[in-house]
Amino acid sequence: MAHFMDVHHGMHGITADQLHEAHQADLAVEGDERVHFERAWADPASGTVYCLSEAPSADAVQRVHTRAGHRADEIHEVPLTV
Amino acid sequence: MAHFMDVHHGMHGITADQLHEAHQADLAVEGDERVHFERAWADPASGTVYCLSEAPSADAVQRVHTRAGHRADEIHEVPLTV
Repeated sequence: MAHFMDVHHGMHGITADQLHEAHQADLAVEGDERVHFERAWADPASGTVYCLSEAPSADAVQRVHTRAGHRADEIHEVPLTV
Repeated sequence: MAHFMDVHHGMHGITADQLHEAHQADLAVEGDERVHFERAWADPASGTVYCLSEAPSADAVQRVHTRAGHRADEIHEVPLTV
């Protein structure tokens, strides 16, 4: 298992409720792919959302996001952390 | 105080030691700006580093990174989190 940071662009004006709903949609289906979405951070002004996950692959992360209705624009494995 | 996610590009091949040293350099000067760098994640393959901080402003985040020797390429306030 590895950690991934994925990024969504174009989410201008996203609200706290919408971020919560999107995260819940990920959590509802992530188990099938052995993915876990740990945290997410959103900047409504620039429309950017960052999601931190633990997963077997970037493809697995994208499959969960796709099934939840919000494909990621970038997915980076982040093997280093402090 | 608010939370910020900043992004550094072009850090291809960054090592665990280099990430640790960069984070320590931030911690050494952040107090002057009332900034705290909480976490950082690095993808050596794409050369991307993400830093999560609590700070009074994006400018304060940039001043700390600049004094530590590594200006951020993007800084986004992230008022929403899950």
